[in-house]
Amino acid sequence: MPILLPLALALAGQPAAAPQTKPAAKPPLSPTEIANQAPAAAWRTIADDDILIFTLANGRQVIVQLAPGFAPQHVARMRILANRHWWDDTSVYRIQDNYVAQWGDVTEKKKLPDGVADSGPAEYTRAGGLPVIRMTRPDSFAAIAGFTADGWPEASDGKRSWLTHCYAMVGVGRDLAPSIGSSAELYAVIGHAPRALDRNIALVGRVIEGIDALSSLERGTGKLGFYGDGQKPTPIVSARLASALPAGERPHFEYLSPASPGFARYLHARENREPPFFTVPAGGADICSVPVPVRRKT
Amino acid sequence: MPILLPLALALAGQPAAAPQTKPAAKPPLSPTEIANQAPAAAWRTIADDDILIFTLANGRQVIVQLAPGFAPQHVARMRILANRHWWDDTSVYRIQDNYVAQWGDVTEKKKLPDGVADSGPAEYTRAGGLPVIRMTRPDSFAAIAGFTADGWPEASDGKRSWLTHCYAMVGVGRDLAPSIGSSAELYAVIGHAPRALDRNIALVGRVIEGIDALSSLERGTGKLGFYGDGQKPTPIVSARLASALPAGERPHFEYLSPASPGFARYLHARENREPPFFTVPAGGADICSVPVPVRRKT
Repeated sequence: MPILLPLALALAGQPAAAPQTKPAAKPPLSPTEIANQAPAAAWRTIADDDILIFTLANGRQVIVQLAPGFAPQHVARMRILANRHWWDDTSVYRIQDNYVAQWGDVTEKKKLPDGVADSGPAEYTRAGGLPVIRMTRPDSFAAIAGFTADGWPEASDGKRSWLTHCYAMVGVGRDLAPSIGSSAELYAVIGHAPRALDRNIALVGRVIEGIDALSSLERGTGKLGFYGDGQKPTPIVSARLASALPAGERPHFEYLSPASPGFARYLHARENREPPFFTVPAGGADICSVPVPVRRKT
Repeated sequence: MPILLPLALALAGQPAAAPQTKPAAKPPLSPTEIANQAPAAAWRTIADDDILIFTLANGRQVIVQLAPGFAPQHVARMRILANRHWWDDTSVYRIQDNYVAQWGDVTEKKKLPDGVADSGPAEYTRAGGLPVIRMTRPDSFAAIAGFTADGWPEASDGKRSWLTHCYAMVGVGRDLAPSIGSSAELYAVIGHAPRALDRNIALVGRVIEGIDALSSLERGTGKLGFYGDGQKPTPIVSARLASALPAGERPHFEYLSPASPGFARYLHARENREPPFFTVPAGGADICSVPVPVRRKT
């Protein structure tokens, strides 16, 4: 897919006045198009209880897929918080450029429900869990990097494994160690993957729709991107699990199974971008350059 | 530096109510603090002719450091465009989430000055140019990755080298190959490093101040993040080289020399984040997690 084209060319969808040595051939499929061509059986439905919908005061929604396979305790707490409507009337109060958007109770005075507290286990890593498909080239942060059967980007040292801090991943804010966070203050990555955080903080999911509702917010002028004088946090109107909505109102999503041949084709395409726009394929990529395909299920 | 703390803790700068097994010790220096402790001799002034200042209609400025050592022809053209005031009354017209902000002449009708045209050399790579300091762990896109003596992130195959598409790097939009672009339509990276573009498009510099004035703009609703119906591109009021301003009005910047011991300490700190926030150092990082320190020179 041509991606840095001038406006007219992008809109017209055909070669503009640029000199071409040959007539334009039919362009190759983009990685996303390759993913979308995978058969229906390669796509797995995300459970209603793993979909958490934050609705902002500006009408935008930020939809998070939870990762109970990696952070079962944090996810259990988050379900309690959602079902108690705890995030209603909280806010997005920190936007640090090239790093994270953070939300929750900016007053730090809101009482947490029973069963939700800053206590272990940390869930920063888990035993075993080698990916079902690996990146072609080495990872700069870990011995092994690839994707799990249930659709998550994972790094591993061969004994333990962990989610990677890629764009749009969601984690739990915490105090200094040994705090692990209460699961009530959350952040999403809105810049280059801050993978130094891997194994140091709990990742609990990823934004599967609406990340730009966070990434395009005004950056905080205070320390660490917290909102400063004269800046207004973005109110959160509600947070609901899809499973708590009437059946007819639930959004449905599916992800491309990393164990499928379609995913292998998608990964190869991401690691080897093609002409006519690209002329030199890299032959590899870092794991955060390969977002797991997720789409609305119709 | 604690970075995902709740609000009160970040503002107070001291441990909050989280359980601590020991009294808090003096926190270690952050990577940025380590860089700033390097002696004055380790910092190199950026030439006035390498500083290009875009002023937006909202009053924000986006300041770009040019990279003539990598893209001499593109930079020469950009200096012509700036000195002819060509970018005045153009706009930022494309914002694609987790990818790029793009600016220039959205009408594609503005006449280019003599000496500025879509013609070679491409300047996607250059001969030689091995970095003076390398990353500890392998790179996922190239055989070698590190930093040049003149302060740029560079990848190499041992024979040729190239700038890497890290956050805030600036490149030249182009049509399908063999177009290389006219140097008039520019983009800046505002998401996870799209390093598949390395060697496929010309990088010509980096935003050294004001990247958030681009990254926080509303995302385009059109194809590829171009602004769609009802969206207004952000006007560019002017673009000037610092060398074209009166001496007293020029902003001055300096970068930490990658050949200095201070840079080596900074790199080590980025690759091995420390307690009390971090408990597991990665022992490495990708090159785009190590932005070259640049600061205002007073």
